[in-house]
Amino acid sequence: MACRYNEQMQFETLAIVGVGLLGGSIGLAAKSRGLVRRVIGIGRDEDRLKHSQRQGAIDEFARDFESVIPQSDLIIVCTPVDLIVEQVQAISHLAKPESIITDVGSTKQTIVAALSKSMTEGATFVGSHPMAGSEKKGSEYANANLFVNRVTIMTPTEPAPRDRVERLKGFWESLGSRVVYLTPHEHDRAVAQVSHLPHAVATALAGCVDPRYLEFSAGGFRDTTRIAAAGSAIWEPIFQANRDEVLAACERFALRFEEFRALLSANDRSGLIRWLNEGKQVRDALGS
Amino acid sequence: MACRYNEQMQFETLAIVGVGLLGGSIGLAAKSRGLVRRVIGIGRDEDRLKHSQRQGAIDEFARDFESVIPQSDLIIVCTPVDLIVEQVQAISHLAKPESIITDVGSTKQTIVAALSKSMTEGATFVGSHPMAGSEKKGSEYANANLFVNRVTIMTPTEPAPRDRVERLKGFWESLGSRVVYLTPHEHDRAVAQVSHLPHAVATALAGCVDPRYLEFSAGGFRDTTRIAAAGSAIWEPIFQANRDEVLAACERFALRFEEFRALLSANDRSGLIRWLNEGKQVRDALGS
Repeated sequence: MACRYNEQMQFETLAIVGVGLLGGSIGLAAKSRGLVRRVIGIGRDEDRLKHSQRQGAIDEFARDFESVIPQSDLIIVCTPVDLIVEQVQAISHLAKPESIITDVGSTKQTIVAALSKSMTEGATFVGSHPMAGSEKKGSEYANANLFVNRVTIMTPTEPAPRDRVERLKGFWESLGSRVVYLTPHEHDRAVAQVSHLPHAVATALAGCVDPRYLEFSAGGFRDTTRIAAAGSAIWEPIFQANRDEVLAACERFALRFEEFRALLSANDRSGLIRWLNEGKQVRDALGS
Repeated sequence: MACRYNEQMQFETLAIVGVGLLGGSIGLAAKSRGLVRRVIGIGRDEDRLKHSQRQGAIDEFARDFESVIPQSDLIIVCTPVDLIVEQVQAISHLAKPESIITDVGSTKQTIVAALSKSMTEGATFVGSHPMAGSEKKGSEYANANLFVNRVTIMTPTEPAPRDRVERLKGFWESLGSRVVYLTPHEHDRAVAQVSHLPHAVATALAGCVDPRYLEFSAGGFRDTTRIAAAGSAIWEPIFQANRDEVLAACERFALRFEEFRALLSANDRSGLIRWLNEGKQVRDALGS
């Protein structure tokens, strides 16, 4: 259940393209806090859009851009990363010059580079990435407080006007998140390590275990592999879009894991204790 | 809070050596279900033992074996794996011939091999390993239902009499767990994959990330690295005691992870989708 914050209304009309877990949560969060007058969902599946409407995440819905985008003040694209560039380009041709377009994609360099070339006037695009989500997919898991106490990374680049960047920042903050500005490159390197690499590691772990032994798995295996349940439809495009940084993060991990194997093979007990404690210290700093 | 099952009493006196998370949980679970008349905790730290007594996990405590073991019917050793052999040997010299000694150690080959040579008569030792635990350490996290719906692996070997093995099986079942018999070798191979490897992987992941990026970590990183918070005092002896199987499990993982890197490097999109889906299928089968 959402708290009602009575924030000041920030945008008249919010359009959400792709009303899944993130899009639905943005709709619920913005409406429950009174940040927008109305929310319009755009998607392909009418049943799902109707579900989001009943849920209160959106007020209206449409299956095309033409009827919605010209009347929208903030447009948030919540589709898989390989669709974002094309959709933002289409949206920018229809949007009011003063509107703001953003996304929630998990990679930024490819998207921002493609869009900064193609968008020279009119509506402003600024990349966003709220560091919130779930291995669960779909608007049925939408949650008005998904962004509370989470970081949202924004990657503002020229020629986005500063006042629009700050207006978007204010929106994410009103949803409860702390906003950090990074360059698209810094963003992609950071999330390669803290988000994309863990996904690859968890999936490798789930995929390498002899299935006969799964019945003996307990909480540790479950926690460590949980995110492997997210679908390849979301993740394959993310890995492709951030290939270089993901491969660099994989190399960091592989070297660290190799240290473990070497210490254990060599029976280096004090080295192994040091190695274990270094990982523990990092994890302890995060809290549970 | 524990349920009261009104099971039949199974043992007059239960001695728990090492009253931490597992030992404390066994005490709470056995007492709340009426499986034992009294529980005696054995440990070194009087303050901690008093805490367990107040908590209801043990009725009495002692800091030596001599006063407790001769009057105990079931003795469960819950200390780190590198202490178990020595302690069981000391206990077996003091125990009644008809008593049962078990442990909760995370490795079994080393322990069972050492003990089957040294224990030829009198009290029976049978290895146990309840697949339950937490990255949290200490009796303050003890829980009477820790074993409910978990698997407990037992590794009965000659010359343990069958009736005693079954009595111990009944005890673990009364705590709520499903018991599976494995050979010590099968046990160590299985847990290397589903428990020891995940610990190494989680700790490598926590230890390889650039600390500047940790502020951007979200639920995925937290879940995947959670068990890295367990201490090296428990884990270093486990890795040592199960070195060969852990190294074999590391090799399985490294090959699987290498597949990911190769598919991503080669831009093999369909291969990457297949790889991601294989991991997802395993994880989906486990439930959340």
